[in-house]
Amino acid sequence: MLNYDKFFSADVPSFLRSPVREIFRKVDLNAICSFAGGYPSADSFPLADIPALTARVLEKYGSKALQYGATQGVPELRELIARREGVPVGQVQISTSSQQGIDVCSRILLDPGDAVLVHNPVYLGALQSFRAYRARLVPMEELSSAGDAKIKFIYTIPDFNNPSGETMSLEEREALVALARRLDVLIVEDSPYRELRYSGEQVASIRSLAPERTLQLGSFSKIFAPGFRLGWIIGPEPLLEQIYVCKQSLDLCPPVLDQYLAAEFLGSGMLDENLVKTREKYRERRDLMLSLLERYMPEGVSWTRPEGGLFLWLILPESIDTVALYDDALSRGVAYVAGSFFYTDGSHRNTMRLNYSFIALQKMEPGMKLLADVLIKALNNS
Amino acid sequence: MLNYDKFFSADVPSFLRSPVREIFRKVDLNAICSFAGGYPSADSFPLADIPALTARVLEKYGSKALQYGATQGVPELRELIARREGVPVGQVQISTSSQQGIDVCSRILLDPGDAVLVHNPVYLGALQSFRAYRARLVPMEELSSAGDAKIKFIYTIPDFNNPSGETMSLEEREALVALARRLDVLIVEDSPYRELRYSGEQVASIRSLAPERTLQLGSFSKIFAPGFRLGWIIGPEPLLEQIYVCKQSLDLCPPVLDQYLAAEFLGSGMLDENLVKTREKYRERRDLMLSLLERYMPEGVSWTRPEGGLFLWLILPESIDTVALYDDALSRGVAYVAGSFFYTDGSHRNTMRLNYSFIALQKMEPGMKLLADVLIKALNNS
Repeated sequence: MLNYDKFFSADVPSFLRSPVREIFRKVDLNAICSFAGGYPSADSFPLADIPALTARVLEKYGSKALQYGATQGVPELRELIARREGVPVGQVQISTSSQQGIDVCSRILLDPGDAVLVHNPVYLGALQSFRAYRARLVPMEELSSAGDAKIKFIYTIPDFNNPSGETMSLEEREALVALARRLDVLIVEDSPYRELRYSGEQVASIRSLAPERTLQLGSFSKIFAPGFRLGWIIGPEPLLEQIYVCKQSLDLCPPVLDQYLAAEFLGSGMLDENLVKTREKYRERRDLMLSLLERYMPEGVSWTRPEGGLFLWLILPESIDTVALYDDALSRGVAYVAGSFFYTDGSHRNTMRLNYSFIALQKMEPGMKLLADVLIKALNNS
Repeated sequence: MLNYDKFFSADVPSFLRSPVREIFRKVDLNAICSFAGGYPSADSFPLADIPALTARVLEKYGSKALQYGATQGVPELRELIARREGVPVGQVQISTSSQQGIDVCSRILLDPGDAVLVHNPVYLGALQSFRAYRARLVPMEELSSAGDAKIKFIYTIPDFNNPSGETMSLEEREALVALARRLDVLIVEDSPYRELRYSGEQVASIRSLAPERTLQLGSFSKIFAPGFRLGWIIGPEPLLEQIYVCKQSLDLCPPVLDQYLAAEFLGSGMLDENLVKTREKYRERRDLMLSLLERYMPEGVSWTRPEGGLFLWLILPESIDTVALYDDALSRGVAYVAGSFFYTDGSHRNTMRLNYSFIALQKMEPGMKLLADVLIKALNNS
């Protein structure tokens, strides 16, 4: 066999394998009680509507729905998003997933050694992307550690953060915008969960506070279905123009039939109808998980109380190591994601992320009991 | 407005805007006689079969077809491709378009200043991708000009090349493989048209000649429909492993419903049935274009006689500048792509690429007359 190592780009050693995806590679999530992953609930998908949607799209657009499309996305979908978000259509680029949104922002903005400011803990897919471009991830509270590195942007999920479940207050958003202006850097506002609020009041988006320096990433994964791999990017036109050129060489254009399906789903009002139901389902799941935590978790464990999104965050006594416990938990039939994977320095091994959207409702209590058993046993042994 | 230039990566000035995509941005191709673009014929798409395919996929897979999928692609599609291509399934990665195949190969292999060996003229999407990573494109015949640059791979479309329409003989393929082995570099075999042969005998793929150092890119765009943005990468597992990790941060996974549709289309035998019809249609178009060129082109014009694919290549007298003529041609209602766009150095302005797959059959003769008029007028004025 050849020695392939010498062929690789200098970026490759910085590639970070997703521990979450590695879990999925090995385990059938349906066979266990999984609080891992960030999958939406399958029953939030408009499965029954897809045949009729497809028929309508093919009748309306014919073979155009199967042909190459515009690099920016099909005009019908861009216009619907522009209207919904209150921006000119020229400020909307469709992305082939909001993960691609993160990647293409990194691609046009980052050079090796550049810094990205983040809140710890950070969304893993963003960590992977920034690392893959050999950027330095600098936690907001350690700003001075950026040193000579050129800070290019602040990355944030202000609404129902993945992984922490927390939402930034208006004051925190204003402070972040003030910081971005003081440093004269851009902001990448990752916004896949914004429409999934179950309680409390919506807070102004960062884009609305600083439209001149924000690239906002939207996603159809949680409001339609992730299998379509569709998202969007809203931002200042000079930035979108480079994203457009870059996207030509990334994949030419987003999936076309999928875009028309999304346009039909959104334009017909079905998306908003479905969203009402999805919010209700997820609210019930969040509430159930919070009450189960209350009931089963031993003393010394605390957690966030998310107002929306798919996740909450557990903080355990310092003696607990969630990475070390993982195999034991899995062998008992419960999965989570260790919190340290989301930290830029791999610290906070006493934390974990729990997802409440994916697991079957009737498995939530058995799963929580299993998890509590694992933790209680570990606490007793420590 | 902010000055955004300072935020951009050092790669951005090397981004190349596709002149072909720019044409599409401005002109409705259906309103003119277009030999530009590389669109398949809309009537090659199995449009009428899509509703039934969709229904079958949803019945078989249910909500799985709308959920996140494996990063490598759904197992069903990977297995079908592995069987068709005679490789282990571990050597198949599904890509979100074969353009993404090119991009991800560039991403894992190229550093700024590295060289890629190419045949001139080169597929524009590959040129864009290599340039975007600041690689040097070195024509095969100017190998010595690579100088100190580290040559990472040879890029080639051996079957019915885009743009030239030419096919490499077995001897040429063996020579290319020998060169790759002598230089100890990889080969990226871009193979989107291989199944579209209309005459002559199939030649062994480069992968079959050098499996240990070839990344072969396949595409569903010409054998199913480009709107699905699906392709595949076959290669040695150590290379695919890095592509897999990279793809996690690029877009997590390829579009899932689209993959199941492709699997159903391929697995049911419909793809092969459709391919027989598509080849017949395209053979007729190729033959018609060749006879029209014979009939209308002035003396001193020569062209390739492709055995398959979507394109042929015109070589005009040296006095003709196809870039300069383009606006005149367009205003008369005929479009082509100037050949110099496909040259690493922008030379050969007396060449052009003609596509015969997209234009409506009855527009081919009027289009060719218009094109001949433009060329004859230019020749008379020169």
